[in-house]
Amino acid sequence: GDVVLGVDRLKFETLLERQKALHGARLDTDLGASALRELVRQYKALVLKETGKPFPEAPLQQLRMAIDAVFNSWYGQRAVEYRKIYGIPHTWGTAANVQAMVFGNTGDRSGTGVAFTRDPATGERRFYAEYLLNAQGEDVVAGIRTPHPIAKLKQQMPKVYRELERIYKKLERHFRDMQDIEFTIQDGTLYLLQTRTGKRTARAAIRIAVDMVREGLITKQEALLRVDPSQIDQLLHPMIDPKAKAQVIAKGLGSTGAAVGKVVFSPERAEEWSRRGEKVILVRHETSPEDVGGMHASEGILTATGGLTSHAAVVARGMGKCSVVGCGEIRIREQEGFFSVGDLVVREGNPIALNGNTGEVILGAVHLIKPEPDADFLTFLRWADTARTLGVRANADTPADAAQAVKFGAEGIGLCRTEHMFFGEGRIPHVRAMILARDEGARRKALEQLLPMQREDFLKIFQVMNGRPVTIRLLDPPLHEFLPKYHEVLQDLTRLRLTRGDPDAIRELETLFQRISELHEFNPMLGHRGCRLGITFPEIYEMQVQAIFEAACACKRQGKRVLPEVMIPLTGTRQELADLRALSVRTAEEVMRRERVRVRYLIGTMIEVPRAALVADQLAEESAFFSFGTNDLTQMTFGYSRDDAGKFLPRYVEKGILPGDPFASIDAEGVGQLVQMAKERGRKVRPDLKLGVCGEHGGDPRSIAFFHQVGLNYVSCSPYSIPVARLAAAQARLKEVKSQKSGVKSQE
Amino acid sequence: GDVVLGVDRLKFETLLERQKALHGARLDTDLGASALRELVRQYKALVLKETGKPFPEAPLQQLRMAIDAVFNSWYGQRAVEYRKIYGIPHTWGTAANVQAMVFGNTGDRSGTGVAFTRDPATGERRFYAEYLLNAQGEDVVAGIRTPHPIAKLKQQMPKVYRELERIYKKLERHFRDMQDIEFTIQDGTLYLLQTRTGKRTARAAIRIAVDMVREGLITKQEALLRVDPSQIDQLLHPMIDPKAKAQVIAKGLGSTGAAVGKVVFSPERAEEWSRRGEKVILVRHETSPEDVGGMHASEGILTATGGLTSHAAVVARGMGKCSVVGCGEIRIREQEGFFSVGDLVVREGNPIALNGNTGEVILGAVHLIKPEPDADFLTFLRWADTARTLGVRANADTPADAAQAVKFGAEGIGLCRTEHMFFGEGRIPHVRAMILARDEGARRKALEQLLPMQREDFLKIFQVMNGRPVTIRLLDPPLHEFLPKYHEVLQDLTRLRLTRGDPDAIRELETLFQRISELHEFNPMLGHRGCRLGITFPEIYEMQVQAIFEAACACKRQGKRVLPEVMIPLTGTRQELADLRALSVRTAEEVMRRERVRVRYLIGTMIEVPRAALVADQLAEESAFFSFGTNDLTQMTFGYSRDDAGKFLPRYVEKGILPGDPFASIDAEGVGQLVQMAKERGRKVRPDLKLGVCGEHGGDPRSIAFFHQVGLNYVSCSPYSIPVARLAAAQARLKEVKSQKSGVKSQE
Repeated sequence: GDVVLGVDRLKFETLLERQKALHGARLDTDLGASALRELVRQYKALVLKETGKPFPEAPLQQLRMAIDAVFNSWYGQRAVEYRKIYGIPHTWGTAANVQAMVFGNTGDRSGTGVAFTRDPATGERRFYAEYLLNAQGEDVVAGIRTPHPIAKLKQQMPKVYRELERIYKKLERHFRDMQDIEFTIQDGTLYLLQTRTGKRTARAAIRIAVDMVREGLITKQEALLRVDPSQIDQLLHPMIDPKAKAQVIAKGLGSTGAAVGKVVFSPERAEEWSRRGEKVILVRHETSPEDVGGMHASEGILTATGGLTSHAAVVARGMGKCSVVGCGEIRIREQEGFFSVGDLVVREGNPIALNGNTGEVILGAVHLIKPEPDADFLTFLRWADTARTLGVRANADTPADAAQAVKFGAEGIGLCRTEHMFFGEGRIPHVRAMILARDEGARRKALEQLLPMQREDFLKIFQVMNGRPVTIRLLDPPLHEFLPKYHEVLQDLTRLRLTRGDPDAIRELETLFQRISELHEFNPMLGHRGCRLGITFPEIYEMQVQAIFEAACACKRQGKRVLPEVMIPLTGTRQELADLRALSVRTAEEVMRRERVRVRYLIGTMIEVPRAALVADQLAEESAFFSFGTNDLTQMTFGYSRDDAGKFLPRYVEKGILPGDPFASIDAEGVGQLVQMAKERGRKVRPDLKLGVCGEHGGDPRSIAFFHQVGLNYVSCSPYSIPVARLAAAQARLKEVKSQKSGVKSQE
Repeated sequence: GDVVLGVDRLKFETLLERQKALHGARLDTDLGASALRELVRQYKALVLKETGKPFPEAPLQQLRMAIDAVFNSWYGQRAVEYRKIYGIPHTWGTAANVQAMVFGNTGDRSGTGVAFTRDPATGERRFYAEYLLNAQGEDVVAGIRTPHPIAKLKQQMPKVYRELERIYKKLERHFRDMQDIEFTIQDGTLYLLQTRTGKRTARAAIRIAVDMVREGLITKQEALLRVDPSQIDQLLHPMIDPKAKAQVIAKGLGSTGAAVGKVVFSPERAEEWSRRGEKVILVRHETSPEDVGGMHASEGILTATGGLTSHAAVVARGMGKCSVVGCGEIRIREQEGFFSVGDLVVREGNPIALNGNTGEVILGAVHLIKPEPDADFLTFLRWADTARTLGVRANADTPADAAQAVKFGAEGIGLCRTEHMFFGEGRIPHVRAMILARDEGARRKALEQLLPMQREDFLKIFQVMNGRPVTIRLLDPPLHEFLPKYHEVLQDLTRLRLTRGDPDAIRELETLFQRISELHEFNPMLGHRGCRLGITFPEIYEMQVQAIFEAACACKRQGKRVLPEVMIPLTGTRQELADLRALSVRTAEEVMRRERVRVRYLIGTMIEVPRAALVADQLAEESAFFSFGTNDLTQMTFGYSRDDAGKFLPRYVEKGILPGDPFASIDAEGVGQLVQMAKERGRKVRPDLKLGVCGEHGGDPRSIAFFHQVGLNYVSCSPYSIPVARLAAAQARLKEVKSQKSGVKSQE
């Protein structure tokens, strides 16, 4: 046994235990003495054969070898790689603690057990322990014998129990945290083998933290640092019942809770089935903006391609829905109505489950647990708000999202994507008419149809946000995203021509295909999108700005407060921004003059292409705020397409070439330099430049710590990530204060 | 008339001339007096009507207004924009020179003419002038009357001729350059109206420069600064006879000389027709690596899409062939066998011509002039070599390219792309077998087939280069580039299925399509390519490095010198480079040990993704050289796909948002910052880090000046651009020395 306390902890392994692990044998204490002797003989023979030396019999030599084994484990390949990935210095070294052996299996006055000082599942303040008489530690852990609840020990060995009670309380007071304790009783004497901070569920973590503050054991600041922000997510989404038996059939990249439903292969089917009350999981090769309706109707989304920031993952997270993306093992045969994994076939209508925490795809329906945030949770997050200096906004495109965001504590909208509105019911025909328009006149006519719809969208969002800032990004995606897909139209056209279809239908499809071909791009990510659309089709941006300000004026006239922030996407040069800023100001002022209402507003830009960071000083002269679009900035700085990186990124992380997926946690070393640079250059020109982040990193605790450290004003993330962000922001600030106090930072 | 000498020159315009321009009227001096009076009356009435004021009759007032018009022209919208684009300070202002009016149309003792002090077409040292008696300047220029050669003046007015001769020689001596002179004779007295540096052809420019050095008129340094490097190109490629009548039907982005040939729509057709002796122009929507054979067989390439750094343009330039790309006006109907521009239809087999200098597409065959570089040209370039400090290498993928490059003066190969070799005859089946391989074993088997071919490629190139450095880039493009196109296979498959084709063929195509689908990328530019291939399929890079070193050893054994530089593309992180460097060193050392030959070699990387520049200090620790791939660096820094930017870049340049196409001339402000940063950070760690450029910018004079200034070691460009680069590099150095001497730079 071992008790090793400290930053780093490695199991004290005896040579025998190593051999067991090596040969897969189990040492069963219930074996008869002769069988045991036989086993020992076999082991010794094995040791001789494998190492060329007899089993060391001298206890001191055994001890030395055991100690060496611990120290050598520091240099094991996996340990070295682990440290590399997590940036732990190799110079730290490890520790070995040597203690006398005690035996819990000497008879009925002996025993062994494990204990938690509070309930690790609920956080309730009660002693939660189990034990076995006449047994060693492994027997409790291995699950062969069923241990007794600790209450029984109180009857069986009251003295031992009282002592244990005294000790566990003392340990918890000493370490000021819930402890996970291992103990052994040898002939009526209690020995503590180990104590360490106990693992706990998210719910327990918060309850324990809040209780301990109330008990005066820890400060609010300490409490805030006790809960891992990434755990918070568990409290907001359903999760798979840990007791459920799950037949995992494939694995991809998961996000957000869990989902159970029947497999459907098209968004139309998803909507149709969902309308008649079925719970469905949408299974697609990948998703695109036109699938949003179907995604909304589904419980979860499973895709064969894409990474954690692919369309499917991003949109699903935004909706608070579970997704598993980039699941390359599944082969989808939409037309045949099934998908397969190896030989296994899953048909449309078959139930499956997705586990967003693990990325697992599970065959059949499993039981989900849906936790409810309780009063402790709300208290805890309020403490976080008082501790943090970094603002937290939401990415929200609809009034419903906005309301959800406010409920979760958003201080504003950091990213309202206008393109999702273009896919709304009754809109796509006008959007397509606009795109297919051959001249500005026809385009303006189509835009006129869209104007009142956009205005209505914005008005409702402004009403919900009631004076909180709302950053609206002007149209960003390339226009071909609003048209049917190139391949599909090509396929339809080939089919129609071969089957001598209706000539009118063919002609119409040809015209459509012609336009789709013209708009087709080799690298849409680097194509005709963002402010490049605003420069080439200024009438689109004019319509959007007009809608924003007509909505703002209407909102103000209703007696509500309103603060629109117009955001120009994908800027790379000063002149782009100057032109579109002028267009926006002109349009805004025109509307306000006409409406005889004045609203405060800001015009700013996103920093998404590396060049924007390099010329941030120039951009700051034309911009009241910068919002870092770290998804795109990561794509372009690394040269990784988020939709394609699934082909090599997992290998990169596996091989330790990258510490992790840079779309999940910001690459501080590379992309972070550009963020830092843009901040410095921008603030030099405009000291009050407002700085935020609206990429997926806005909801990632490690990234949030980085953004806090750089000195941004706020992060913006999907509504369901807001609690996580509030806590992560608080922790970033508390750690900063701590390191400033200890002077470690300033001394180095 | 006007004689305005100085940096800026603007025509002295009388109010009358402005009115003429305004109303499109022509003042014909041959009109009768009454008709002339009537015209004057009409003008005066027009002036009154348009300006509300009578025509000013006081000569002094007229003069003042004329002078004002000149000064005001400095603030004209076009002038302001011009200065903005070319960075000319608005504070410079302009000058107006007032001189007495003289008349060449007072009778037969009067006349007017224009003269060049040397032949502007050939550069020959002879007085090249024309004149008309009893005429004004406009009559000579307008081309209504046919002027006389100057020899006749010698007879008609010998005194005037002698004076003119004396003056032109004096002017040339004074200005130390060939002059373009306007003169008028009024009643036997010679007046000089204007002198300025004369425009000349490339051939003349070089001859004049070389002659003037020989005459002791200018220094070699001055001579080098006299020739515009971008003109050099004219001397290496055929050009359209300026006298030819050309029916221009469309315009795109042109490169490299001119071409005439019959239209073909497929690379196969190009090869087939070319084999039977036809000259063809390949017309494609866009080109891809598999078209290279057909491109090689063609005189020129015309594409509907793409920019100046698209595949078509880059490959054509590399071959020294004319291309016009991004010609959006043409609609290609390959299957119907024609392309159209508006109503005009051009069928396969119809002759067309391309003008690479103007981007024009011309209907019908026109006469081409094929200039031959002469002795003066070679002398001139040798002078450039002594003046420059920046090295010049070639991008060359084949022994033929390499030989051409050496002929043009390349000091090494800066970029040898190995992927073009993969398309060679008899190779593509092995490449495809490698890609379709389901496991490493099958992949290695296919690679074994490719190994001897790659080795042979390298051996021949090493032999040609004979000890000059050869930088070989390991495989860079995504694997799907080697497979048939997604759309085409999809179309074929749809067709086969509908027509109930051969089941085996369908099955085979399905397998192929499956793999193509798996490899399909949304943004191939940001996908699974470059060193990412090397990390995921190390056996590919191993084969290539093995081939390089087996070839190097064989070359050395033949008694030739050899200096391979292994270049790892698309690096973004230190660990990528460390891994692949280790792989390369291991493979290289293994080969040399086995072959018992030692060759010197370097291992380095390309700087193409912005992150590479940001972590250049880390990369320098693993790299003996950096080669800036400024094509990709520009794509990622701006977020512009070079294949798609044609949709908005022209508009951007037109609107003045960008000073020009950043793929043609490097964006010093943005992309240049990254180059500078990588240089500084890299050299800090490794002071002898070799730095080069191997993007298309390597052949662009303005970019070369920038690279010289940053302090790179060399530029690498297509063989045909090497003379341009040699001169541009010399000019960059000479201008630097000049500005250091004048101390302007250091004073500011």
